[in-house]
Amino acid sequence: MSVPHTFPTLRTPGGAVPPDAPAWNRQRPSAMPYHRYRPVHERVAVPLTDRTWPSRRIERAPLWVPVDLRDGNQALAEPMDTARKRRMFDLLVTMGFKEIEVGYPSASRTDFDFVRHLAESDAIPGDVTVVVFTPARRDLIERTFAAIEGLPRSVVHLYTATAPVWRDVVLGRGRAELRELIRDAAGHMARLAEARTEDIRFQFSPEVFNLTEPDFVLEVCNGLTTLWDACPDRPVTHNLPATVEVATPNVYADQIEYAHRHLERREDVVLSVHPHNDRGTGVACAELAVLAGAQRVEGCLFGNGERTGNVDLVTLALNLHAQGVDPMVDFSDIDVIRDTVEHCNRLPVHPRHPYGGELVHTAFSGTHQDAISKGLAHHARQAEASGEPAERAPWAVPYLPIDPADLGRTYEAIIRVNSQSGKGGIAHLLHTHHGLDLPRRLRADFSRTVQTATDDSGREATPEDLWELFRTTYLAPAQEGPVTLSSWSAEEIAPGEHRFRCELRTDEGAGHYEGKGNGPLAAFTDALAAAGTGVDILQYSEHATAAGPGSPAVAYAECRVGAVTLWGVGRDTSVLTASVYAVLAAVNRAAVNQASVNRVVAQGG
Amino acid sequence: MSVPHTFPTLRTPGGAVPPDAPAWNRQRPSAMPYHRYRPVHERVAVPLTDRTWPSRRIERAPLWVPVDLRDGNQALAEPMDTARKRRMFDLLVTMGFKEIEVGYPSASRTDFDFVRHLAESDAIPGDVTVVVFTPARRDLIERTFAAIEGLPRSVVHLYTATAPVWRDVVLGRGRAELRELIRDAAGHMARLAEARTEDIRFQFSPEVFNLTEPDFVLEVCNGLTTLWDACPDRPVTHNLPATVEVATPNVYADQIEYAHRHLERREDVVLSVHPHNDRGTGVACAELAVLAGAQRVEGCLFGNGERTGNVDLVTLALNLHAQGVDPMVDFSDIDVIRDTVEHCNRLPVHPRHPYGGELVHTAFSGTHQDAISKGLAHHARQAEASGEPAERAPWAVPYLPIDPADLGRTYEAIIRVNSQSGKGGIAHLLHTHHGLDLPRRLRADFSRTVQTATDDSGREATPEDLWELFRTTYLAPAQEGPVTLSSWSAEEIAPGEHRFRCELRTDEGAGHYEGKGNGPLAAFTDALAAAGTGVDILQYSEHATAAGPGSPAVAYAECRVGAVTLWGVGRDTSVLTASVYAVLAAVNRAAVNQASVNRVVAQGG
Repeated sequence: MSVPHTFPTLRTPGGAVPPDAPAWNRQRPSAMPYHRYRPVHERVAVPLTDRTWPSRRIERAPLWVPVDLRDGNQALAEPMDTARKRRMFDLLVTMGFKEIEVGYPSASRTDFDFVRHLAESDAIPGDVTVVVFTPARRDLIERTFAAIEGLPRSVVHLYTATAPVWRDVVLGRGRAELRELIRDAAGHMARLAEARTEDIRFQFSPEVFNLTEPDFVLEVCNGLTTLWDACPDRPVTHNLPATVEVATPNVYADQIEYAHRHLERREDVVLSVHPHNDRGTGVACAELAVLAGAQRVEGCLFGNGERTGNVDLVTLALNLHAQGVDPMVDFSDIDVIRDTVEHCNRLPVHPRHPYGGELVHTAFSGTHQDAISKGLAHHARQAEASGEPAERAPWAVPYLPIDPADLGRTYEAIIRVNSQSGKGGIAHLLHTHHGLDLPRRLRADFSRTVQTATDDSGREATPEDLWELFRTTYLAPAQEGPVTLSSWSAEEIAPGEHRFRCELRTDEGAGHYEGKGNGPLAAFTDALAAAGTGVDILQYSEHATAAGPGSPAVAYAECRVGAVTLWGVGRDTSVLTASVYAVLAAVNRAAVNQASVNRVVAQGG
Repeated sequence: MSVPHTFPTLRTPGGAVPPDAPAWNRQRPSAMPYHRYRPVHERVAVPLTDRTWPSRRIERAPLWVPVDLRDGNQALAEPMDTARKRRMFDLLVTMGFKEIEVGYPSASRTDFDFVRHLAESDAIPGDVTVVVFTPARRDLIERTFAAIEGLPRSVVHLYTATAPVWRDVVLGRGRAELRELIRDAAGHMARLAEARTEDIRFQFSPEVFNLTEPDFVLEVCNGLTTLWDACPDRPVTHNLPATVEVATPNVYADQIEYAHRHLERREDVVLSVHPHNDRGTGVACAELAVLAGAQRVEGCLFGNGERTGNVDLVTLALNLHAQGVDPMVDFSDIDVIRDTVEHCNRLPVHPRHPYGGELVHTAFSGTHQDAISKGLAHHARQAEASGEPAERAPWAVPYLPIDPADLGRTYEAIIRVNSQSGKGGIAHLLHTHHGLDLPRRLRADFSRTVQTATDDSGREATPEDLWELFRTTYLAPAQEGPVTLSSWSAEEIAPGEHRFRCELRTDEGAGHYEGKGNGPLAAFTDALAAAGTGVDILQYSEHATAAGPGSPAVAYAECRVGAVTLWGVGRDTSVLTASVYAVLAAVNRAAVNQASVNRVVAQGG
């Protein structure tokens, strides 16, 4: 990627600091032409002052209606072919969606053919209803009805733009004319449905609802509720789209609450919303709209859709899950869902996309890693104490709003290490991937080594990198240092009395040595002392790296060797061998350390 | 990408439809383990009932504080090196940010070195203040102060996790102990600052503010306001992060309004927010928080940051721009900004990312294209009438919340054509790229041709594809059909009387013909009639494709030829030649058409 280092086209803000600016805010007026825009509250007033939605909480999932096959599909550079559409449809059914918009059959042959494909196959389970989309034109409505012929259940979804700019600039019709156009189309739909034996319901969308005068919306929608003769068992869906996001999400919530409270025959109406994401607040719009009375939400998986996309149903549903509310849809393998959506849409899901992105359960920062590591351990203990399996036990782990296991993800990718990471994350990775349980002081010691390495490389350290760094730092010196053990044996010569015999090679040659002590390690240090190397073991621990016989043991020894204190580690199927090599590694590290000190001194550094 | 066609690991929802479910909602309980989570309002109660934020509107930009170099950087698999950090810093300065968090100098050498690099270079303009981040540990605070030595202005930003789960599981401290730890660190900061001559201010972040008891937040923050001896000219910044998003954004707004109304010495405090995006509502949280009293917002360009990211400052600022409020930051070339951010972070910006994504000003759907096309034409007329340049005139174009030109984008990519597109978009592209202004009925005629082609290919049609299809359909037949003009001339032989002489070649040989009429085209059809081809011109129009002499003219002729009616188009620097070829193209298309009808009849089809 070629990136200019200067920014020649930016109109750098250059006005004076506003005279009323406080001392801590020196921001200057920009040269952006913001005067071209008017805030929405100056364009459409919502006569609602006694709103109730801010005090409410979501306690139940709305009806989710994925529109991936229609609105999402219309926004793709390469729309789905029938195979891709079928795969998307099957995914939506498998996840548990019960109402699915499947196309705009009068707009293209591909869409028409797919609806026919569904009608003529057994793809639609008995409890799933499909929705088809149509504009308000008699010939196109007839084509739509031709598409759904034979489908046992469907919703015919009529849309018309109703906002003033659209009426004036696009349609060239006033309110009364437009209302008549909609009534004519709706009446035609009713007559066509009457001639069918199938179960056909109706939906209406006044497009760009959020820029339409509230009284006009009510006038049109209430008229259709009557015309279509809605009742609680066969309600009409009034879908009020934020076709283009134009205001903070509380304004949309006010608009929805106003509609909710003023739509006539409310029990005969399903109040639906359809937010887009131009301002990056589509999810918030949908959530606040549900608080305000919406019962049904249209959106797409991972937020595909025209421009910035439709609202993301994955995020919405999992937001409920994370608050203890049944999402009524299944996300137990989010990576399969993501892969399928990427295949069908030929668009990527961003690594930071909530819940489904590759990086969203990953922590690089040291503080977060340490907290997560402690939190996971705490969670495991709590679950064990309660007798519940860890993957069903109540979850409260820092920085992880939900357990990635709920989504079929493992813990592997949660913690990743680079120069921003700390000892908690490093220790966690060595534990997860290699079964190591580092003593606290060794964690701090090793994290300094890791940080130097990642600072130098500027790169992430994978679990393999960490293991390699750990091995070369603490384990390898036992084999590679100036002092090596050619052969050795240890035996308990009397209760509590151990003897260690060995052949040691040093820079000065090889020799046989023997030592005694109250344990084999004490006997080994005695032998080392006999060879001229004084070692004090300050701290020692060991553990098996996995359950069952044959799994290697790891031994950690913090030793004072001459003037320095350092750690050595040994790993072997024999606990004794591991511990001997841990001490030997420390001895050799000290020797190398001393040699480099001597070099510096000799050079007068 | 390999995608499984079955979804083996999804736990398909399978419970019964809930008994109280309405007829239109057949959603079933899922098998997701949502019971593991408790809603935040059951965990932290906010004692606010008389909220005012839902009635307020944003009228002024808050202080934007980018944290790309600290929080954003901590979340990268490969953190920025000094060169990348410097490039990001320069971009932020050029855009007009005045307070910039530049690192966590005690956490890594790279961060420390970068702060020193800034201190020792002339990178920081006189009106820009840098922020550095530190945990509450004396040795690390000292290292932080070492990093900022010599910087004329800085903010030292102290953070500590204060939420109950963090206190219990991570820190192992109660409220009183934690408050003392924070006071000790804050006191140390105050003493170190006192020994300096530079301008050093203080910031405090109670991490996971949104899960912390409101009274504990106030207790800690108010204590620091006093301890740090804040005043209006040297205020303390209390930054209240939604470190992990856990509730709908109205809950965060309530929490911020409560803090805003209960923080002591409010005029000595800058109330700052720092939303993350775990629930996809980071932007909404920031906006509602500003309504609720926040004066300062921390975030990252395009929303980089740990897990799902920090709130996106690009979206926030441009949301203000789109509502007529000065963003106080410059976005006049958003693609340069995006490219630089992608270079520094080594992460992509998604094609649907608000404002900056590649696809966000693009329309594929026919309805949208038609509306945009009409809206752009209307905008151009309005601007011309008002005498303002189009790029400064008030903007109200359907489906485009702001003019892409504000961001340095052209109109080229706004409309793209595939099988979901309609005549409006196609006509728009032919107009934009080839200067064609198709008559209304020709638009409909050509869009059917395009739809057949895109339905067949399943792909997008580029402007070049469209032109090629248009040329072969309407223009080429004049040269390639059964009837060709070998030579011709037209002259006005008397006022209003024209003569057309030509040599025509047909399947049956060549011949010289002559015709007369009240114009050259009428004379040409008279000549064609003499040659045995009856043609009625039903509709005719022509225009130049560009301003100035030498630009080609295009002529459109809708003709009835025998039993069929079709369009022909001609293009030439001579208007007369273009019109003759338009008619001839229609004649030849009819002949081909008739030949294929004859073939079908002959085959008994």
